[in-house]
Amino acid sequence: MPTLIHGGDIYSAQSTVEGRIYDFSANINPLGIPESVKKAAAFSLEQCVHYPDPLCRELTASIAEREGVPSSYICCGNGAADLIYRIIYALRPSKGMVLAPTFAEYELALRAAKADVVYCALSEDSDFCLDTSILSQIKQEKPNILFLCNPNNPTGQTIERSLIFSILKCCKECGTLVVIDECFGDFLDDFEEYTLVPYLKEWDHLLILKAFTKMYAIPGLRIGYSLCSNEEINEKVLDAGQAWSVSIPAQSAGTAAAKDREWTVKTRSYLQKQRKTLSDGLRKARFKVWEPKANYIFFKIPNDVSIDLKEEFKKQGILIRSCANYPTLDERYFRIAVKTEQENEWFLTVLNKIISERKE
Amino acid sequence: MPTLIHGGDIYSAQSTVEGRIYDFSANINPLGIPESVKKAAAFSLEQCVHYPDPLCRELTASIAEREGVPSSYICCGNGAADLIYRIIYALRPSKGMVLAPTFAEYELALRAAKADVVYCALSEDSDFCLDTSILSQIKQEKPNILFLCNPNNPTGQTIERSLIFSILKCCKECGTLVVIDECFGDFLDDFEEYTLVPYLKEWDHLLILKAFTKMYAIPGLRIGYSLCSNEEINEKVLDAGQAWSVSIPAQSAGTAAAKDREWTVKTRSYLQKQRKTLSDGLRKARFKVWEPKANYIFFKIPNDVSIDLKEEFKKQGILIRSCANYPTLDERYFRIAVKTEQENEWFLTVLNKIISERKE
Repeated sequence: MPTLIHGGDIYSAQSTVEGRIYDFSANINPLGIPESVKKAAAFSLEQCVHYPDPLCRELTASIAEREGVPSSYICCGNGAADLIYRIIYALRPSKGMVLAPTFAEYELALRAAKADVVYCALSEDSDFCLDTSILSQIKQEKPNILFLCNPNNPTGQTIERSLIFSILKCCKECGTLVVIDECFGDFLDDFEEYTLVPYLKEWDHLLILKAFTKMYAIPGLRIGYSLCSNEEINEKVLDAGQAWSVSIPAQSAGTAAAKDREWTVKTRSYLQKQRKTLSDGLRKARFKVWEPKANYIFFKIPNDVSIDLKEEFKKQGILIRSCANYPTLDERYFRIAVKTEQENEWFLTVLNKIISERKE
Repeated sequence: MPTLIHGGDIYSAQSTVEGRIYDFSANINPLGIPESVKKAAAFSLEQCVHYPDPLCRELTASIAEREGVPSSYICCGNGAADLIYRIIYALRPSKGMVLAPTFAEYELALRAAKADVVYCALSEDSDFCLDTSILSQIKQEKPNILFLCNPNNPTGQTIERSLIFSILKCCKECGTLVVIDECFGDFLDDFEEYTLVPYLKEWDHLLILKAFTKMYAIPGLRIGYSLCSNEEINEKVLDAGQAWSVSIPAQSAGTAAAKDREWTVKTRSYLQKQRKTLSDGLRKARFKVWEPKANYIFFKIPNDVSIDLKEEFKKQGILIRSCANYPTLDERYFRIAVKTEQENEWFLTVLNKIISERKE
């Protein structure tokens, strides 16, 4: 049986945890699915006797309007993860560069396509922030493709736009396609300072990944998209997979989600206080917390504390994401989602219980 | 904009056809979606705030029971088409062999992976039936992978089990993986005479593709699976794509579908009379009809008849599948689905109208 490496695996937990499961291991909007999206998905079920539209015409039009880009920039996929594989199969890179730590699927997809993988290691001393040292590494390694994640997962740290511009210039010279995963971008308070969408036209070796998965709380439906002004790349990406990769419920839900921009405003506002409550609680427990900016928190337990935090939480029905399987991290690092006020309070209550029991 | 090559494109038609569209171009069960499957999909929408189970545990268990194979034989995908690409990306064949004509996605997937494609041409003189001449072609070409489709799409012709055994033996010697697409197998009256599922254990270079798409009328949900006793192959196929390729509604609907075996019995019984009515009507119009065995009919208009049948039907709101874009076929060949009694009668009424108007 394959090993499960990601968060959000409530299915394994269901067989071992009694009662309600609080899943802090997947970074999903605590406000859940907007009514408009729920209705669109439900209403679409009757249409499932038909094949989905291979061209995702309605969905693409909604995304184009939301993002302010031409429809020709957009490729839709069975979640952003589907697009990661399609991009790599389409472009057949012999070498790819990824951050360490970062979301695992970039590396897995590169390895599936037999590409070499080089890491750009993020240093804890620099708070896992990317800096200009990546430029010389790009020049030296000349990867065919570079994956950035902004904000990065699991660290939650952002990459300044000025640095990305330098990276884009450097990659242009090196023939490197830059893929920026902005799947968590809409959770940032100052998301407009970070998104590279307005610069797509200028850079034809820039591809941005986005999804409705996290913001609209529909990871189970699978709908993501890529944005790129290079139509040759887009054509290859579409040709790299089947004709009907986006299901009808996904297309319908995605169309409704793209139209509901208010949801992102409401969500950002809700998260501000909750992010602080959770961070403060973790810091009070003497954990090192990296300032969270999106809807998840990256933290580390102190060297002098010996505790299997994931197991302790699991006993109480709470799933958290151990970051032990990320390159350069170990079992002292964790990531949790920011959830509802009530759930976050319960998390802190359980945390305090775990800590105080240790002291006894 | 990419060219749409398959049937079932109601979306392009919606902008040009007024009123109701009768889609005879996609081979979907005319009885529609069973209630149990509809309910399962609808009920699952609430769960879509979670990621799907990457291991598809419940779905896999239901398929294992239905097919009488161990769970370890099964890989689930985002429709059978997803698995076609995954298999090819996983095994990286340098040469693939496909029938001509056959379902286009095998060739498209091979070409996407930069594999050479060789055709095994089916002759009209032999009624598009595969014969032993394929054996020498396999020995000569030594493809890494061979795609068979049983019954074949679009011709509807079956491959005798004894011939498949000879092919399997020959392919074993040549190091060729044999992929048999049985997606329409359950529509055959004597499906047990054709399915290779009981022989999976014996042959570890045999992989069978199946889907719930056609029989359970859920092409819009995307759910297919592969069966193979070679666990090394299965592991590679799983690793060749993202972790969450099968959505929650697809997993739930598929689980319910796998349990509803009565639906196949009811469907086969319904199709018998309808297949005959439609075939007789087509023959009466002087069309050459190849004896249909599944839920679709392959036919040809006579050489002396000059008519744009697809366009004529479209004017009346009926979509049919022109087979002009299949290798070796041309604009005289068509495929239609067998639909409900009422729809089939309407089809024949329109056909007779088209024919009689030509004579005037």
